[in-house]
Amino acid sequence: MSVVPTRDRIRDSAADLFRHQGYHATGVKQIVQGASAPLASMYHFFPGGKEALGEEVVRVGGAGYQELVETVWDAEPGVVASVHAVYDGAAAVLEATGYEDACPIATVALEVASTNETLRVATADVFDAWIESATTRLTAAGIAAADARALAVAVVGGLEGAFVLARATRSTEPLHATGAVIASAVARALPA
Amino acid sequence: MSVVPTRDRIRDSAADLFRHQGYHATGVKQIVQGASAPLASMYHFFPGGKEALGEEVVRVGGAGYQELVETVWDAEPGVVASVHAVYDGAAAVLEATGYEDACPIATVALEVASTNETLRVATADVFDAWIESATTRLTAAGIAAADARALAVAVVGGLEGAFVLARATRSTEPLHATGAVIASAVARALPA
Repeated sequence: MSVVPTRDRIRDSAADLFRHQGYHATGVKQIVQGASAPLASMYHFFPGGKEALGEEVVRVGGAGYQELVETVWDAEPGVVASVHAVYDGAAAVLEATGYEDACPIATVALEVASTNETLRVATADVFDAWIESATTRLTAAGIAAADARALAVAVVGGLEGAFVLARATRSTEPLHATGAVIASAVARALPA
Repeated sequence: MSVVPTRDRIRDSAADLFRHQGYHATGVKQIVQGASAPLASMYHFFPGGKEALGEEVVRVGGAGYQELVETVWDAEPGVVASVHAVYDGAAAVLEATGYEDACPIATVALEVASTNETLRVATADVFDAWIESATTRLTAAGIAAADARALAVAVVGGLEGAFVLARATRSTEPLHATGAVIASAVARALPA
């Protein structure tokens, strides 16, 4: 028997399936099968069903990805190197996973943006937290507040868009190219 | 009766539904209902079913969006103004449509990237054509070939990512901020 609690196995199975094929293509039966859990356990742990599970996947997955990116970012000696490291690291993971393991919430974000307000707000909260995290780090490096916010949006948005292009074209070029363009913009915004 | 041919009505209905809620959430019955067409006409015009229709939606929608963006781009006196016009125009459309009308193929691209090779290749072909179109225009403005390609990837990827953030957060900030950062990068790459 797995030592991972059933509730966590259900959430992890859902996260994998949502990232692989999206929210709508994923059925509750497929989620519990992937978790080696009985169907009843799904409704025991998530009385709100697939939507409640989806919200937790977005919020927990979003926070986990933020922590991972912050670790990569903070290991570099400066913010320009940090931007390169985040984009190049994402490219390496994407290539190593057959262009599957990209942003944990982007597919769900686009699927639900116009159709499910609970899930839309969850994805918005995650993106806002990511932008805030990058803004704080760029401001701490001496970049003026307004510039730091715009650059942070470009860092996060550029990564999301590069994931879309990279997964579709099965190439890491979008990550390296976009990362280099954004890193240059950050370099020029730094105080002399 | 509509003067739009049934085949086109089916394709347009599918395009609207895919953009609104994604590929997987959209059923064939919903598509023909939206087209005011009988179910049999779907399989008459698209013997390959939903996948064949999906491929045509991606390819025709992708080419149509490219034509629209090129018209906006080419109306400006220079490439820096063009980048601003494309991002700001996209922001205006997004806001006017309740944050629904963004990239016509991004949601499908993420949903199918790891699950449907026919549709993945269609989305890759569309993105490649967009990047090629932008590369040609940046090169014509005097930017060196390698820089032009990287900037074109950033223009297209930045737009895609800004759409993800803008639809999730219901704000046009990601489009204006990312557009300004990319436009500055283009400005610095121009010959003196």
